[in-house]
Amino acid sequence: MAKQVVVLGGGFAGLAAARALQGGPCTVTVVDQNNYHLFQPLLYQVATGELQAEAIAAPLRRLLAPAGVDFRLGRAAGIDLSARAVQLACGTVIPYDYLVVALGSVTNFFGHADLALHAFDLKGVELAERTRSRILYAFERAMACPAAADRSAWLTFAVAGGGATGVEFVTALLALVRTLLRRRYPELQATPPRVVLIQGGPAVLPGFAPSLQAAAAAKIRSLGGEILFGTHVAAYDGLTVQCTSGAPLPARTLVWTAGVRAHPLTAALPGADPGNGRVATDPRLGVIGHPEVFVVGDGLNRRDHPPWPQVAPFAMQSGRYAARAIRAAIGQTPPPPPFVYRDPGSMVVLGRLDAVCQIDRWHVRWRGRSAWFAWIGLHLYRIMGMHNRLLTLIDWGVDSGNRGNAVEIIRRG
Amino acid sequence: MAKQVVVLGGGFAGLAAARALQGGPCTVTVVDQNNYHLFQPLLYQVATGELQAEAIAAPLRRLLAPAGVDFRLGRAAGIDLSARAVQLACGTVIPYDYLVVALGSVTNFFGHADLALHAFDLKGVELAERTRSRILYAFERAMACPAAADRSAWLTFAVAGGGATGVEFVTALLALVRTLLRRRYPELQATPPRVVLIQGGPAVLPGFAPSLQAAAAAKIRSLGGEILFGTHVAAYDGLTVQCTSGAPLPARTLVWTAGVRAHPLTAALPGADPGNGRVATDPRLGVIGHPEVFVVGDGLNRRDHPPWPQVAPFAMQSGRYAARAIRAAIGQTPPPPPFVYRDPGSMVVLGRLDAVCQIDRWHVRWRGRSAWFAWIGLHLYRIMGMHNRLLTLIDWGVDSGNRGNAVEIIRRG
Repeated sequence: MAKQVVVLGGGFAGLAAARALQGGPCTVTVVDQNNYHLFQPLLYQVATGELQAEAIAAPLRRLLAPAGVDFRLGRAAGIDLSARAVQLACGTVIPYDYLVVALGSVTNFFGHADLALHAFDLKGVELAERTRSRILYAFERAMACPAAADRSAWLTFAVAGGGATGVEFVTALLALVRTLLRRRYPELQATPPRVVLIQGGPAVLPGFAPSLQAAAAAKIRSLGGEILFGTHVAAYDGLTVQCTSGAPLPARTLVWTAGVRAHPLTAALPGADPGNGRVATDPRLGVIGHPEVFVVGDGLNRRDHPPWPQVAPFAMQSGRYAARAIRAAIGQTPPPPPFVYRDPGSMVVLGRLDAVCQIDRWHVRWRGRSAWFAWIGLHLYRIMGMHNRLLTLIDWGVDSGNRGNAVEIIRRG
Repeated sequence: MAKQVVVLGGGFAGLAAARALQGGPCTVTVVDQNNYHLFQPLLYQVATGELQAEAIAAPLRRLLAPAGVDFRLGRAAGIDLSARAVQLACGTVIPYDYLVVALGSVTNFFGHADLALHAFDLKGVELAERTRSRILYAFERAMACPAAADRSAWLTFAVAGGGATGVEFVTALLALVRTLLRRRYPELQATPPRVVLIQGGPAVLPGFAPSLQAAAAAKIRSLGGEILFGTHVAAYDGLTVQCTSGAPLPARTLVWTAGVRAHPLTAALPGADPGNGRVATDPRLGVIGHPEVFVVGDGLNRRDHPPWPQVAPFAMQSGRYAARAIRAAIGQTPPPPPFVYRDPGSMVVLGRLDAVCQIDRWHVRWRGRSAWFAWIGLHLYRIMGMHNRLLTLIDWGVDSGNRGNAVEIIRRG
């Protein structure tokens, strides 16, 4: 009987693993709580109305069927390592011979219940759309406020976390705010909106070269944004952001990009870090003591080295590696050489017509309009399916036409 | 001081009234609970995955600002006729000199609490998307069902109401089901899905000529649909539809298009019908005893005649008429002649490449592919804004390419 491979998660890592097993001596089933693969690197643009969610979501069945891979809609609720079975929330049990854990990460509020309650975040279609609706709603509320202080609090947007997501979100938010002010709410010119980035470290974009970090910070400021360095959000009640230093900041909206942790099921595996939940595996990405279980993507850790980057190229490479290891194990051939990540470099977009790019392998430090066009091309290429690409192109055309953002719809509920 | 005109509702009727007041001797404020105008005639296509909601929603501020009309996001909670003021749910009070009530209609479950709880409906973006998600989810659940009876109940879609919305929805649903079965779920060919239209009267499309009614029914059957005539839904527990006659129908999904009533605030006005809540006004659309309050669109009734049709052309004509009457009243010129509806005819689309069209004025009875192309052109022309038209065209291109429907995303929550 053919070996059963179960892949938990249809993100970049899980999809790459499943596709790389195509034609192998096994049946493959991908389990995901959503019926679509999400192009997460552009999710922040859903939160700023530059893209509609449909442009970056592709049905998993459409992507998996050509590879002969089964799909199962469901939320994984437990992994029984000794019985070699996955339990779904609906009660179904799916046995496996090999398991690929590609569950990605979840927002980490570091135990702050007030943040979990009041802050907005970007992890998923519904949450990104909720953030967009909140930003647009804040402008509507500001229009209806008789008191200047209230109006100002509705028009202050705090963003926690100055990593790649935080910087991309803030620059896009600044562009959105500017367009809304000019095109939709000229009456609010007298109470200019504030966008405040709160970054714990001394620079934005940790891991990038100091010159690019400085360029990103300068760009944010030139677009009208403010940056608070060396301080963290200590508390938030929905009205005022309390930081670990400095004055309280009245802000009706706080968007949290300051931390993720591995999915709880990943964090329950042997070798998981008690802090971030990421799993240190053997050199072939197998869970210690369970070489039939592989951890790939965001949930993967390594010992004695800086942590792996939680980005799409890493997810895809680790996913493909796990598929290769599974093929070897089934074919009873020697396992592949230990996993090595080949870093293709990092790009961060800084609003319209600007980006920074760093490719360590080639000592490249690149910024400006040409980097932005490279970013656009790369992302359009990577988005799955012609329909999604067309939608993305049309939305971006509307965005850069500057008559407004592509999506200005406030969703309810 | 300029007279204050308040328009409740930014649908076809309210938007037409507000725009027709452009340049008049008054300030105009449109109040809506959504920040967008919705092209409701195509909402059923959102429910069947043919269109994304963004394609048929246009920001009201974008539509109103060029006409110099203010917009206020908020839910109207009360009308104080004697104080001439509208209360919003947030507590704000907006005084008016003239009021245009264009609040449209809401789903009418005729007091069936079980239907309100378990049935799906199409009145609004979120509900239409919820219906689409349900249909797609039903296929996923059917894939996971070991028992044939359960699988069959998940794959049975009951639709109550054989009016224009019900017929358009059913034909689109049949096309969706067929595409899903062929492209995404070939394993389910053995348990063919059922689509059952439940129609109280003896024919679908009441008000149309018998030949077109028969054509619509024949089309539904030729696409694989079933029709139950002369029976009503009596009860639904989420599992089995109980009709007033005939055998119980196990169906996990019931979509309700069998009735609307006027918005509760309209139904509270003098002259409202206790049944459907629609208001019989004076011949100039003014509320009896309150000629400064106009009712337009779906909420409007008339005495001693068949009821007005609840369609976009009627909404726009009545909205424009109210604007004309308000201009006359402010200018202290004689009121316009009594309102007369000029019926441009009705069109109902029957899936892909087929439609029926009836224009009583010219004794036109038209059906087939040419009617469908006329329908496409008319609807594309009427959709507001180039961006929305482009999105619609792309989605329809994908739909007719038959590789799948434009939107196959299951939303959560």
